[in-house]
Amino acid sequence: MNALNVAEYMQSLGVQARQASARMSGASAAQKNAVLRAIAARLRSSGAALQAENAKDIERATAAGLAAPMVDRLKLTPKILDTLAEGCEQLAAMPDIVGEISGMTQQPSGIRVGRMRVPLGVFGMIFESRPNVTIEAASLSIKSGNACILRGGSEAIESNKALARLVREALVEGGLPEDAVQLVQTTDREAVGQLITMPQFVDVVIPRGGKGLIERISRDAKVPVIKHLDGNCHVYVDDPCDLDMAVAVTDNAKTQKYSPCNAAEGLLVAEGVAAQFLPRIGAVFAAKGVEMRCDARAKALLATVAGAQVVDATEQDWAEEYLAPVIAIKVVDGLDAAIEHINRYGSHHTDAILTRDHVHAQRFLREVDSASVMVNASTRFADGFEFGLGAEIGISTDKFHARGPVGLEGLTSLKWVVLGQGELRR
Amino acid sequence: MNALNVAEYMQSLGVQARQASARMSGASAAQKNAVLRAIAARLRSSGAALQAENAKDIERATAAGLAAPMVDRLKLTPKILDTLAEGCEQLAAMPDIVGEISGMTQQPSGIRVGRMRVPLGVFGMIFESRPNVTIEAASLSIKSGNACILRGGSEAIESNKALARLVREALVEGGLPEDAVQLVQTTDREAVGQLITMPQFVDVVIPRGGKGLIERISRDAKVPVIKHLDGNCHVYVDDPCDLDMAVAVTDNAKTQKYSPCNAAEGLLVAEGVAAQFLPRIGAVFAAKGVEMRCDARAKALLATVAGAQVVDATEQDWAEEYLAPVIAIKVVDGLDAAIEHINRYGSHHTDAILTRDHVHAQRFLREVDSASVMVNASTRFADGFEFGLGAEIGISTDKFHARGPVGLEGLTSLKWVVLGQGELRR
Repeated sequence: MNALNVAEYMQSLGVQARQASARMSGASAAQKNAVLRAIAARLRSSGAALQAENAKDIERATAAGLAAPMVDRLKLTPKILDTLAEGCEQLAAMPDIVGEISGMTQQPSGIRVGRMRVPLGVFGMIFESRPNVTIEAASLSIKSGNACILRGGSEAIESNKALARLVREALVEGGLPEDAVQLVQTTDREAVGQLITMPQFVDVVIPRGGKGLIERISRDAKVPVIKHLDGNCHVYVDDPCDLDMAVAVTDNAKTQKYSPCNAAEGLLVAEGVAAQFLPRIGAVFAAKGVEMRCDARAKALLATVAGAQVVDATEQDWAEEYLAPVIAIKVVDGLDAAIEHINRYGSHHTDAILTRDHVHAQRFLREVDSASVMVNASTRFADGFEFGLGAEIGISTDKFHARGPVGLEGLTSLKWVVLGQGELRR
Repeated sequence: MNALNVAEYMQSLGVQARQASARMSGASAAQKNAVLRAIAARLRSSGAALQAENAKDIERATAAGLAAPMVDRLKLTPKILDTLAEGCEQLAAMPDIVGEISGMTQQPSGIRVGRMRVPLGVFGMIFESRPNVTIEAASLSIKSGNACILRGGSEAIESNKALARLVREALVEGGLPEDAVQLVQTTDREAVGQLITMPQFVDVVIPRGGKGLIERISRDAKVPVIKHLDGNCHVYVDDPCDLDMAVAVTDNAKTQKYSPCNAAEGLLVAEGVAAQFLPRIGAVFAAKGVEMRCDARAKALLATVAGAQVVDATEQDWAEEYLAPVIAIKVVDGLDAAIEHINRYGSHHTDAILTRDHVHAQRFLREVDSASVMVNASTRFADGFEFGLGAEIGISTDKFHARGPVGLEGLTSLKWVVLGQGELRR
């Protein structure tokens, strides 16, 4: 396709999505759930066919010399297909939030006013490598009564096509429009440029991938973007604090997994507990090979820990998302300094205070300007499933519309509903 | 100021607003309410001084040959000042929604998860002529714990300066930062361009004014915009329907005031009731001098109405916002055609069905894709006060974040709050 053809092609997807979304918004809960269960059944029965398509992507990636971990992320193993099927069944079992009316109250004029939850309309999803996202995004889109246009990475194109075909068959079988889920069939990069600049057809785009991709999309998009760029999450160990708990939670927040955006990248320790706490957590980090980038006070307290990799932190370290066995550590005077540091250097993603002090806990929750704020829990809990959303389409560090883990609710909006008996405005 | 100076000046307002917003977000309800009451007291006691400043604007506008209705909109009469003072007192008496925690539930991991309502941060308000907006926006900003940067029209600059000074004095008296409310002191147009492109300092902009201004701002803004462009609102008279009620409500929706964005601009009538209904509403419109732009079926039924101004509607009429004694009228086959017409030509602002049929009412509410959907009530009720919001900062026809009339809640967002007892992610 040339650029002109890509533009026309994307516009046609847009028109079809808009039409499908009108029908999806009126679909019954039973209809949508039947489609989700049909997708699950097909994922379970079509394993061999899906893996045959998936093998094409894997062969191509291997031949192109893609790194082994990247090739791994492409794989649709029986276990992954089963997990995807389970996810669809869980969504089918969840209550339908579309059409829900809340806060209906009578006003002095006599009218009753409330709000109805309705689908946003059409969303665009832009993602890299993992073909799982095709099913995750499609199933959330169906459950929330939206239509979606999916743009996966070129390395997974055959897998994505096979999965999208399966979803569209299930939609048709359930009497819903197949264009409720459309996969962009070209790998031309211009398709993304089109997708994010069609406000007449697309209500929001959700990019998942590297920071560069997301920055570019945010800059160029003419529609709202649900996104997060960085996860520079902090654990602040307050004074007073249960230090056994603090060691366990800090360790979990940093080392349970290094790559997720909700892993801790910064550790702040109140002066009053630093001499007791830092050598203990330092020993844990030393044992796990976590490098510690420290301010002068922290460095002094960690100097005696056997095997610790302690280096001087630079200004840059306070703002860094390592996604690796590295952590920035600073001793602070107390709560005020911790809050100030987090609001200044953090990425407004997830930050936790570990404390025994009730007033400190309340102030931290209120004053730390992040999407998720926690008391005495691991930052690793900032996740749609752990928060009880049942699913997660993305995470937002913006304040407008959805904030933090975004599930079904983030794909809906509230319109006003007025019920009268012929009332007139005076 | 030259362009460079304007840019520097606006950045300095941005820095100050950001700092003030951090303090405002932590301000207690009592402190904010005391400031609101202090503003009310000053509005009541400073009438003469405010009117002296206001007189300068009025003189300048009159000398410049501004039309009388425009000059009228500039005036700060004792009655207007009193209404503004009352508005501040009402806001002070309302519950504070900042810090409110909702939906706190325990998850299988043991953590408790809920959401806390927090201020958005800093908003920019761009408005024309009416200096009232300075007080309305400032008071909503204070109550919601935000900081704001206000950019009023050049014709009201002296009045706006005097009102902003008064607000800032009240803030200082109440121990809150005066920079929580800043008025742009230059009338240079470049200031608007800066205000809407400083995402590091401004979280959302709210323009109020002509469609051209709002389109320009939406196109150029690098921050979210809360806006509506058009109010092409419809009344659909269904079959079956109480026609006495339908005549009264349709009349109210069109003629109670012609200029508001929630006045009806289109009337759709189900075929089954058209022969009875149209001559009746036609007589009302004829008596009030409302021009009727009709499709062929409606025209035929209105032909015999004495004094009726009936003309043929063009395609353009279905999409028009007249804000005048003109209405577009179409006979439709029934509910499906009405919903299709409204979703195609409407502006997603406010639309009403007048009906006796429960199933039709439910379908209209669900399927009409507008910010406010109504059954048996006048479209003129789409208003923050009538909806019980206590105040209104603007109206949004977008689906993202706030939709319809926007009050205090639209100036806040929800962050996630997690309370644990040392839970770890497995």
